Amino acid sequence: MRSFTKYDLKEMERLYKINLINSASGFKSANLIGSISKSGNGNVAIFSSVIHLGSDPALLGFVSRPVSVRRNTYDNIKETGVYTINHIYEDIIEDAHHTSAKYDASISEFTMTDLSEEFKSGCQAPFVKGAPVQMKMKFLEEVKLNLNGTLMIIGEIQELFVDQDILKDDGLINLTEAKVVALNGLDHYTIPQSEKRLPYQRPKISNQLIKET
Amino acid sequence: MRSFTKYDLKEMERLYKINLINSASGFKSANLIGSISKSGNGNVAIFSSVIHLGSDPALLGFVSRPVSVRRNTYDNIKETGVYTINHIYEDIIEDAHHTSAKYDASISEFTMTDLSEEFKSGCQAPFVKGAPVQMKMKFLEEVKLNLNGTLMIIGEIQELFVDQDILKDDGLINLTEAKVVALNGLDHYTIPQSEKRLPYQRPKISNQLIKET
Repeated sequence: MRSFTKYDLKEMERLYKINLINSASGFKSANLIGSISKSGNGNVAIFSSVIHLGSDPALLGFVSRPVSVRRNTYDNIKETGVYTINHIYEDIIEDAHHTSAKYDASISEFTMTDLSEEFKSGCQAPFVKGAPVQMKMKFLEEVKLNLNGTLMIIGEIQELFVDQDILKDDGLINLTEAKVVALNGLDHYTIPQSEKRLPYQRPKISNQLIKET
Repeated sequence: MRSFTKYDLKEMERLYKINLINSASGFKSANLIGSISKSGNGNVAIFSSVIHLGSDPALLGFVSRPVSVRRNTYDNIKETGVYTINHIYEDIIEDAHHTSAKYDASISEFTMTDLSEEFKSGCQAPFVKGAPVQMKMKFLEEVKLNLNGTLMIIGEIQELFVDQDILKDDGLINLTEAKVVALNGLDHYTIPQSEKRLPYQRPKISNQLIKET
């Protein structure tokens, strides 16, 4: 095993460190967040930090960098209170990745890529057409992490759209069947293959039995 | 597309909803968190919420359920301030999944599975032997999400251990080469396959050019 202490990290070349630490946490979700400004400028941007926070209510969070960095998505969400989360799948990897380029707020990434916007009734923000999972989100709260100024943006699922073919009888959305992407680090796109589903686990022997021996 | 509104979710059968919402956010990291109580009881438990929060300092977060639920990992981390994060890979899926069973704090999941604990100098908490990525973490802060009482536990990487074979020249840890797992929902284990790496993206034409037209 190669080992890096926190002191090694401190001295490390910047790009090497970013690649290393961004791939250290494991595979990441890969989503396109659609938003729109009050004045009607659309935006779509790639995020790899969307995370499940609760099922009832259905809450998802994502990480936004400190306010000092230009962040069209964040500004739009704060302005309108609504956004969409769309899963990246095999066919749109290049275009999804390109949304990481720093465009001015006046330019929609939809016009600079082959990604198509889709509007659904009752939602101001654009969805990404063709995505096998699309969610209309309502902004609820931002939580500032004092350690580095990062913001956790929390929203509630208002409506969830799922490709019927990948929705299983018990509610699982089988993401492998839609070739949904998982991200490794900043730029390594992967397609997960189904391995197995495992049942709910109970202790092998009762705690009581253990205590008596 | 099948659609579920927030009102549909409210009325939905509990297990169906849990499967649905847990698979809606995209693929998730799959890690074993190792910890130890002040009195020396080891613990290892599966988490699918470890998330990258920053590279300098190197911060990772994970989600812990409300304090009302029994949480040995949380209690141990608060007691000792130290824990380990270890990646789940193909060979240990069954044992890793079994750590989700609710054992009493006095019982180490290491004794109830074929997972082996590994101790490294300078770290009280056990690592999972054989994991291709292992991290020694120092607890820094817990952030309570008021919306549902969930806690985000934030720690800093003190030392990162990586299988030399999967460490690339530019710092990327190639997780696919170690058959690291990504989770889909609560129980669908997947093994991502490498698709492609893509370069850093810049705008296709300058913003200035657009503004002038």
